[in-house]
Amino acid sequence: MAYELYYWDGLQGRGEFVRLALEEAQAPYIDVARGHKKSGQGQAAMTSVLNSKTEPHIPFAPPFLKDGDLIISQTANILLYLGPRLGLSPDSDLRYVVHGLQLTIADMVTEVHDTHHPIASGQYYEEQKAPAKARATDFLAHRLPKFMHYFERVLAQNPHGDAHLVGAALTYVDLSMFQLIEGLHYAFPRATARFAAQYPRLAALRTAVAARPDIAAYLASERRLPFNETGIFRHYAELDVPAP
Amino acid sequence: MAYELYYWDGLQGRGEFVRLALEEAQAPYIDVARGHKKSGQGQAAMTSVLNSKTEPHIPFAPPFLKDGDLIISQTANILLYLGPRLGLSPDSDLRYVVHGLQLTIADMVTEVHDTHHPIASGQYYEEQKAPAKARATDFLAHRLPKFMHYFERVLAQNPHGDAHLVGAALTYVDLSMFQLIEGLHYAFPRATARFAAQYPRLAALRTAVAARPDIAAYLASERRLPFNETGIFRHYAELDVPAP
Repeated sequence: MAYELYYWDGLQGRGEFVRLALEEAQAPYIDVARGHKKSGQGQAAMTSVLNSKTEPHIPFAPPFLKDGDLIISQTANILLYLGPRLGLSPDSDLRYVVHGLQLTIADMVTEVHDTHHPIASGQYYEEQKAPAKARATDFLAHRLPKFMHYFERVLAQNPHGDAHLVGAALTYVDLSMFQLIEGLHYAFPRATARFAAQYPRLAALRTAVAARPDIAAYLASERRLPFNETGIFRHYAELDVPAP
Repeated sequence: MAYELYYWDGLQGRGEFVRLALEEAQAPYIDVARGHKKSGQGQAAMTSVLNSKTEPHIPFAPPFLKDGDLIISQTANILLYLGPRLGLSPDSDLRYVVHGLQLTIADMVTEVHDTHHPIASGQYYEEQKAPAKARATDFLAHRLPKFMHYFERVLAQNPHGDAHLVGAALTYVDLSMFQLIEGLHYAFPRATARFAAQYPRLAALRTAVAARPDIAAYLASERRLPFNETGIFRHYAELDVPAP
């Protein structure tokens, strides 16, 4: 039976981390909220789960995954569940290492979101532009280098070589790292201008993931929506402070 | 062998969610950074792992757990690992439901942190008081009710009854929910004045967890540091907007 992925239509968002794993593994899945666009039934199906008064395991927010009767919420948790099923997770306690890195990516994604929404997620960016500028400036000066320096060290210190974040084979966190780096380049092209020189191993990982046949095919397909200003990674030129 | 928990001394912080599980299970553990206070060796041991140039699985930040050679980072991931070992996690796919809730608590904890640090985690609260007031106001008006209404629904819709968030027995996420509610009451006593009337099931869960013998003994011990203004849950009267 196909996995059912529930996430907002019209943006990559957090759902994209799950899509990349499903696409790499060529797993059958239905992107529920993107279906039945004209009737709106896909979106309605998602809202119906979120608002259910009888479902025993309701999610707080999309993305969530349905596998039969089981509903799994939270991006990193979905990948934890899918990892062994898709052959994208180690078969040992290293799966906790992979998951720890995925959760660190999730933390950074939240910080990226907050560069354009530092005060209120329910208000428009235009209502919080001044604090957004302050937060983005701090993010690019301190947080982005701290996270990326850390992830570069993880690659450098992998005893199996620097082609993967954990172990000797591809895992879902490599795919998520690709997505994170893609998003940072979209949102902050000036601040990431020297990324490949600063973080050569991460840049090589990004290139290697993009070149994987099933990922390349996905990226070229209509299923890969372009980045845009309703997602997490948004390009607002005024927030993109050049790297020092 | 005792588990080694690494977290900053002097505050409860994210480490507290792990401590509550270890204390409930009466598991042997060493709170490494709190040891050897005079010599500073406990803190140095933690920094040494974080800065290691040879360790294959370095954490981004505390808390992290060492179990033998394995290093596990991220609060929710540590609890995922410990859950079955401490008898605080279901033995079925429901463990993904527990973990999804734990990650939703983690998201809320990050939002609580950002009420006093909306712009820069590396700067003092006093340097970001105006945006902190704006963020705290939005948090108390919109985010806290949204999260708590959701968690109350999770209890109400648990087919095994509303004594636990998942299934018929205590899991680590019940303990974390206690800690979250405690922290919210400490930080926002005015905004949470009607909490028990608004969220009766959550309030009952909080009371039940506090009354568990091993938790009660822990809370009365010197190991339980008081909440303070270096932790995540901070009481700044000016941020504590009364509930409408």
